[in-house]
Amino acid sequence: MIRQLTIVGLGLLGGSVAKAARAQGLARTIVAVGRSATRLEAARADGSIDRATTDLRDGLRGADFVMLAAPVTAIEDMLETVWGAAPLDATLTDVGSAKAAIVRAAERLAAVRPIAFVGSHPMAGSEQSGYAVARADLFEGATVILTPTERSVPEASKRVTEFWEALGARVTVLEPEAHDRVVAAISHLPHLVAYALVESAARLCGPALELAARGFKDTTRIAASDPRVWREIFLQNRSALGDTLAVFRAALVELEDVIAANAGDALERKLTDIRSIRERLA
Amino acid sequence: MIRQLTIVGLGLLGGSVAKAARAQGLARTIVAVGRSATRLEAARADGSIDRATTDLRDGLRGADFVMLAAPVTAIEDMLETVWGAAPLDATLTDVGSAKAAIVRAAERLAAVRPIAFVGSHPMAGSEQSGYAVARADLFEGATVILTPTERSVPEASKRVTEFWEALGARVTVLEPEAHDRVVAAISHLPHLVAYALVESAARLCGPALELAARGFKDTTRIAASDPRVWREIFLQNRSALGDTLAVFRAALVELEDVIAANAGDALERKLTDIRSIRERLA
Repeated sequence: MIRQLTIVGLGLLGGSVAKAARAQGLARTIVAVGRSATRLEAARADGSIDRATTDLRDGLRGADFVMLAAPVTAIEDMLETVWGAAPLDATLTDVGSAKAAIVRAAERLAAVRPIAFVGSHPMAGSEQSGYAVARADLFEGATVILTPTERSVPEASKRVTEFWEALGARVTVLEPEAHDRVVAAISHLPHLVAYALVESAARLCGPALELAARGFKDTTRIAASDPRVWREIFLQNRSALGDTLAVFRAALVELEDVIAANAGDALERKLTDIRSIRERLA
Repeated sequence: MIRQLTIVGLGLLGGSVAKAARAQGLARTIVAVGRSATRLEAARADGSIDRATTDLRDGLRGADFVMLAAPVTAIEDMLETVWGAAPLDATLTDVGSAKAAIVRAAERLAAVRPIAFVGSHPMAGSEQSGYAVARADLFEGATVILTPTERSVPEASKRVTEFWEALGARVTVLEPEAHDRVVAAISHLPHLVAYALVESAARLCGPALELAARGFKDTTRIAASDPRVWREIFLQNRSALGDTLAVFRAALVELEDVIAANAGDALERKLTDIRSIRERLA
């Protein structure tokens, strides 16, 4: 049982952590820190949190479990303040979708003031954002990638794992740098490609873009994601993203070459191989 | 009322035309032509068709409405035989997803033997294929692009339009070449990109690809499409596809440049503009 869960940032992810933790009775007190008192009031009114504050230091006081659920660069920017204000016995984690920079910065701070931190990345985002779409069951069946390092306190990894599992998630472990490569490939690259698809189709079709059917809509659904969130993610993880783009371009050129050569059998073999990879994902 | 509807090819689209035409009572007799007698038997057994044959000439005899629902290149290959065997008073259409080559070949044949042909493209495909997934409501609410030309018989356009509307579809009109450019952008390009995304993510992630969440799955769902169907489509429409790929690459590079320059505000403006285009598609 957590004595005081402090959630910093009460958007889709932070709000869903609050609702799920409340539903599961994981914390005696839930405190939320946000930038706007008005927005936090909704969560207080519906009972998902007990107390709201716009002052980070104030919100961290007394916390034994801290969830940093702000946008990625905001998390980086607040780490020093968090390290100054969080109780020494607190366990810290975050929901940032790029991990190497946050984890390495946290390790540098923990070398000076030893607060236990383990990075998390719940793979439960959505093209929607904000507290209004937060739900208690968001993490049910979702995967959370934990990114402990050789400097992490095993007890903290255990505590954070138990927390996510109590919300219904499956926890898996990757090194922070491996995490960033993997999510660049399975999340950031598809987002960037979806944005480019919408942009190019609009240029090519003009008003006929409205003829787009389900296939186009599914493929580009994530291009309706929050620009403020994705601005941060793309910039934060731009080095790993650049590497994945090179591999993506190579794969695209290989397909294009087979098509340009009118090599039907080779093309069908490639498409069949790719389909079997895709089908394993269910 | 159609006297005899002949459907050539009884996969997802042809099978759904049969089921929908039967459900709506659009034709007295429905005849299906296919390559495998065993596969056709399922449709005869469930009452969707009255007669099945593997002989194209035999199936066309007596038809006053003909729907060519085979893969794109198979349609092109059969056009000469169709023109030799179809009754002179029949109305012909097809479901090919690339139109210029089929329509222009049909016009050359119609100049010799005047059978009324108007190309159709029902935007109701799926990553699934085959008669087993055909359904009577497949075209309800779907868009069908009709591609008449200055040489088309207006009466035939009217008849084909009424047919699709009776199946619940909305009909819109484009020139065959404009059609190919538009579908290259909203259908063929997203398919090719989805295949390249799966291939590159598999190379980058190895077994960690299984961590892919809903965003990746939606974006790449169409990479599970039938390789035999898409082999044909990519090859058939490769010239228009090449043009769209150039525009896509340019859009991707523009995004990449803004990210590489760490230009957060410019990036957020671009993402916001693209999101508003995507949101208009609903």
